[in-house]
Amino acid sequence: MLSAADNDMLTQTGAHSPMGMLFRRFWMPALLSSELAEPDGPPVRVRLLGEDYVGFRDSAGKVGLVEPHCPHRGANLFFGRCEDGGIRCAYHGWKFDRAGQCLEATTLPRDAKYDAVVPRLGLRACAVEEVGGIVWAYLGPPAERPALPHFELFDMAPEQFHVSKKLQECNWAQSCEGALDTAHFSFLHMSINEDEQLGHSMRQSEASASGDANRLRWLRADPTPQFSILPHEAGLVLGAARRADGDDLYWRISQFLLPNHALAPSTFPGENYHGQCWVPIDDVSCWIYCYTWNPQRPITDDERARYRAGHTIHATTDAQHVPIRRRANDYLIDRDDQKRRSYTGIAGVSEQDQMIQDSQGFIVDRTREHLGPTDAGIVRFRRVMLDAARAAMRQQLHVAARHPEAFRVRAGGAVAHQDMSISEVMRARFGDVYGRVREGGANDV
Amino acid sequence: MLSAADNDMLTQTGAHSPMGMLFRRFWMPALLSSELAEPDGPPVRVRLLGEDYVGFRDSAGKVGLVEPHCPHRGANLFFGRCEDGGIRCAYHGWKFDRAGQCLEATTLPRDAKYDAVVPRLGLRACAVEEVGGIVWAYLGPPAERPALPHFELFDMAPEQFHVSKKLQECNWAQSCEGALDTAHFSFLHMSINEDEQLGHSMRQSEASASGDANRLRWLRADPTPQFSILPHEAGLVLGAARRADGDDLYWRISQFLLPNHALAPSTFPGENYHGQCWVPIDDVSCWIYCYTWNPQRPITDDERARYRAGHTIHATTDAQHVPIRRRANDYLIDRDDQKRRSYTGIAGVSEQDQMIQDSQGFIVDRTREHLGPTDAGIVRFRRVMLDAARAAMRQQLHVAARHPEAFRVRAGGAVAHQDMSISEVMRARFGDVYGRVREGGANDV
Amino acid sequence: MLSAADNDMLTQTGAHSPMGMLFRRFWMPALLSSELAEPDGPPVRVRLLGEDYVGFRDSAGKVGLVEPHCPHRGANLFFGRCEDGGIRCAYHGWKFDRAGQCLEATTLPRDAKYDAVVPRLGLRACAVEEVGGIVWAYLGPPAERPALPHFELFDMAPEQFHVSKKLQECNWAQSCEGALDTAHFSFLHMSINEDEQLGHSMRQSEASASGDANRLRWLRADPTPQFSILPHEAGLVLGAARRADGDDLYWRISQFLLPNHALAPSTFPGENYHGQCWVPIDDVSCWIYCYTWNPQRPITDDERARYRAGHTIHATTDAQHVPIRRRANDYLIDRDDQKRRSYTGIAGVSEQDQMIQDSQGFIVDRTREHLGPTDAGIVRFRRVMLDAARAAMRQQLHVAARHPEAFRVRAGGAVAHQDMSISEVMRARFGDVYGRVREGGANDV
Repeated sequence: MLSAADNDMLTQTGAHSPMGMLFRRFWMPALLSSELAEPDGPPVRVRLLGEDYVGFRDSAGKVGLVEPHCPHRGANLFFGRCEDGGIRCAYHGWKFDRAGQCLEATTLPRDAKYDAVVPRLGLRACAVEEVGGIVWAYLGPPAERPALPHFELFDMAPEQFHVSKKLQECNWAQSCEGALDTAHFSFLHMSINEDEQLGHSMRQSEASASGDANRLRWLRADPTPQFSILPHEAGLVLGAARRADGDDLYWRISQFLLPNHALAPSTFPGENYHGQCWVPIDDVSCWIYCYTWNPQRPITDDERARYRAGHTIHATTDAQHVPIRRRANDYLIDRDDQKRRSYTGIAGVSEQDQMIQDSQGFIVDRTREHLGPTDAGIVRFRRVMLDAARAAMRQQLHVAARHPEAFRVRAGGAVAHQDMSISEVMRARFGDVYGRVREGGANDV
Repeated sequence: MLSAADNDMLTQTGAHSPMGMLFRRFWMPALLSSELAEPDGPPVRVRLLGEDYVGFRDSAGKVGLVEPHCPHRGANLFFGRCEDGGIRCAYHGWKFDRAGQCLEATTLPRDAKYDAVVPRLGLRACAVEEVGGIVWAYLGPPAERPALPHFELFDMAPEQFHVSKKLQECNWAQSCEGALDTAHFSFLHMSINEDEQLGHSMRQSEASASGDANRLRWLRADPTPQFSILPHEAGLVLGAARRADGDDLYWRISQFLLPNHALAPSTFPGENYHGQCWVPIDDVSCWIYCYTWNPQRPITDDERARYRAGHTIHATTDAQHVPIRRRANDYLIDRDDQKRRSYTGIAGVSEQDQMIQDSQGFIVDRTREHLGPTDAGIVRFRRVMLDAARAAMRQQLHVAARHPEAFRVRAGGAVAHQDMSISEVMRARFGDVYGRVREGGANDV
Repeated sequence: MLSAADNDMLTQTGAHSPMGMLFRRFWMPALLSSELAEPDGPPVRVRLLGEDYVGFRDSAGKVGLVEPHCPHRGANLFFGRCEDGGIRCAYHGWKFDRAGQCLEATTLPRDAKYDAVVPRLGLRACAVEEVGGIVWAYLGPPAERPALPHFELFDMAPEQFHVSKKLQECNWAQSCEGALDTAHFSFLHMSINEDEQLGHSMRQSEASASGDANRLRWLRADPTPQFSILPHEAGLVLGAARRADGDDLYWRISQFLLPNHALAPSTFPGENYHGQCWVPIDDVSCWIYCYTWNPQRPITDDERARYRAGHTIHATTDAQHVPIRRRANDYLIDRDDQKRRSYTGIAGVSEQDQMIQDSQGFIVDRTREHLGPTDAGIVRFRRVMLDAARAAMRQQLHVAARHPEAFRVRAGGAVAHQDMSISEVMRARFGDVYGRVREGGANDV
């Protein structure tokens, strides 16, 4: 439960809000690389943290992200044309490069003043980096720009990862909390009975049938996992332990990385890893960037096809990345299926999460909650984020922004004896207490 | 004509408005019984007087109407699952019964505190009664809950009544006024000429051809009916008398029953009776619950089929009870039909009313009206309602709320000598000056 | 660049705004004559300068434009029925003539008071004139009503002109500026290369192939036309001169006529003339009335067919005059066409203008512009309009309102030696320095 003031602070990301200031000290996914498919292709609209931009890929293949309105008369550069190292406004032909510099002010006389005036006619432009199939943007003060966080994703060859994005029609924070709250797996993604579950999970998951059956049995049997949390420079290791067989516990360990990243808790050694990042479009909708990687082998064509069609964290979307099953159509809920087979009547793990998070409201009212021990992860997430937002308001840079290497971590699942602490489980599972990737990469143990 | 302040008071039904307080001292139709078709079927969304609820029918067939957001994390119970005596939230499986009591808080540890904490985790729930094919809800302070008003509808066997509902896209009060203003029948529902009218009315009405022809002739000939009004404990008897043949008057007598009911004025002895109730969704739209009953015989299959297809007060709607002919499509007005045949070019008595009421605006500006003698009914309605709202603001319960039996009345039409007063006409037509149903039920005379 | 206050003044046309007061001292196109096709046909909705009206053509063929709500109970006369010299409300049959006078108050008793009361039950009605295929309305104070401006269009026989209208989804002023800013032709309406341009212009324009080729070559070669401006009683002559061949200049001369008219700059002698008028629906959308005329010959069937299908200033619209290519569908932009052929990828000169004007925002932010010499026309337009609006606020009638004859002017193109001033070019092209039509009409020289 939060005060109304803290709920506002957690959820509002406008330029002058504390959380907005915090977000503007970190790099944000702005586009999938595939949304700007080729040099000098069509510009695209981007809305980030309530601000409008136009994105384009220039003749050299570099991405620009600039304010949308031409400084001459305000025409929108989305309707412009990319040509020869820049984007040209369709109204009178003024041209700008990806740094926002004016290359040509066609309607001005080419007299003595031209060269003096033109440099003052630039567009505001974001710093941009492109890696991991994602275009990253930095919207904050240029002098404070940190290095790009070093996710393990960035170490992968193209065949080793898959990325997608999906629209979430609610505030970023409650959707991010959904990923950190691993307790809900005992209900939201469950089938009505175990036989259904197994058949269902065969379709939904990528684990082996027998391993999967065990995990689902443990998930179903214990809706009150015990949380253990390890803070580190870039965020939090969040472990949730359920009773498994004998004296063992089944651990699902996720990572929260500031300010808006989560790594998924399901991966067993050898399986694919998953991460997500929540980027506010505004305070009532966000893009979720979803990425899957495997440090040991390529993502197979079959896996890639399943991700494209909607699988695990990847949603079934249209060409604009809007989920087919969404708020406006009640996620195509099948009440008969809900009665007889699945717990929600909604197809897709991603869509089940999307539905329940949207259903909390465009911005969930955290003043009316009744939290318990299984909510320990989101309680800690909120505390970290509110502290960081308050510090950002005082111009204090969060330690995470100075430690890009601290984002090169993994999260996943493990079965361990009940006497082991989370630190011991992390060391046993990842070779490192915080899941840090060891040089050489083979730290799944 | 009202002052702007009185127009606001008449039309606003939010929880803290005077009219909202009045409405919350009476029972309101919340759903058709048929919208919750079976035990443990799908929950439904309900919006009543600007408040959101979730309705569901539990395993025992009893209806619950509870606040939509789970007290744990705020997920919407509309996406929940009805099972074994309650509704279970899809996020973490918390479960509630129809009284809002928490039956299971799955994520809390089953320790010593559990039994103490769980009773405090309930949902706000309305009192609910189900009768006459309608789920009735009481949203006010539990201690002040009155008995359900005893409409004659409730005495009928299932085969003797038919109910429907329809969306009206304007404020409740101007739509209710449309039902109390029986003067408009001389225009709104008329055909251009008498021959058309007869053919038209054959299709629209259920009276016998000859009786109908007379009534329509009288309606057409006299657009200035004389109003006579009799107040009683539950509301108003509103008589409108037009010149008939010889020394006779043709009386159309409706009833207004607090706070939002009207009984229709057309019924001659032996014909079906009709009633409607306007339930604000918010202040710019309402559900109209429509019911037809016959105390002497079953509603025939043919009549029922016609009501379902749209007839008299029953509209032609889609499966969600939204009229097919509605604001967004100009009621499928046929301007050629308007030119040659019907007065509006819009099919359906119900849709004609709906159109003209919507057309006044989302909330009609009553400061600009010019009322005359034929508006006596609505003038009296407003006075009664404004007085009652002011009393509700002072916590005074209206007398109608203490007299459920006073709602067991009828309304209808009669032909009577011009020397008879409304009291005499009522006694002659219904055996009672206020149209009260006599024991045994056979008071049509 | 304007101050925020001046931008508001230029763009806001509500009844109590300075610009709204100015607009209300002039006649406005309210409907195409064809929207009221026949006497006693269906009424239509009209929204003008943020005010709602109902338009109808009475039995005698005369147009009325009246407030929409019946003074009795506020029902909307759009759903009324035109019959026998007036419009009848569908609710209770009150009837009004085109001057707004109540002809019949059906529900009032026909007693001694009736004749005294009824004259007080009128509707507010606009003065209306119908000429040039357009219904013109005057919304201002009746005592200040000026004569209708005398456009040359009004001298034409029906076969000599063609009119249309089209929706523009932004503020009127930036769209009007688009017509006065003739510099944009060097980019917005251009093809990528000259060969494309010629083929393209063959389809888009009506000039002869060789003349067209020259003009397009000159337009393409010189994006910095020199502006010369001549003020006159009704507005401004706006000349833009580009380098042509040898010592010649290619002049494109438009006219701005107060408060919201523009005549197009392209017409060479013998070609069709074009004019447009921007009528605010509200401050974020407007109707553009478009008219083409030829003082020397009929508009051919072929030209008329092309205008109907979308050509020059006439857009491709649906039956409600809404452009098929519009804001909601990104004007059906074809990015491949934009890459290879046309500069915008959007078909239609009208639609290209519409797109770029919409793209500036619903109301362009003129505080962020960087204007140059080629923007001289719009700078002067703003000054004239802001001065006139300030004067209107002080109840001073603009001189243009007292000189209806000053609107009988032409605009068009010419090729002239570089030593000729705009006055000399105007005299050579039109026989008059301000383009005034000479008696006899043959002043194209």
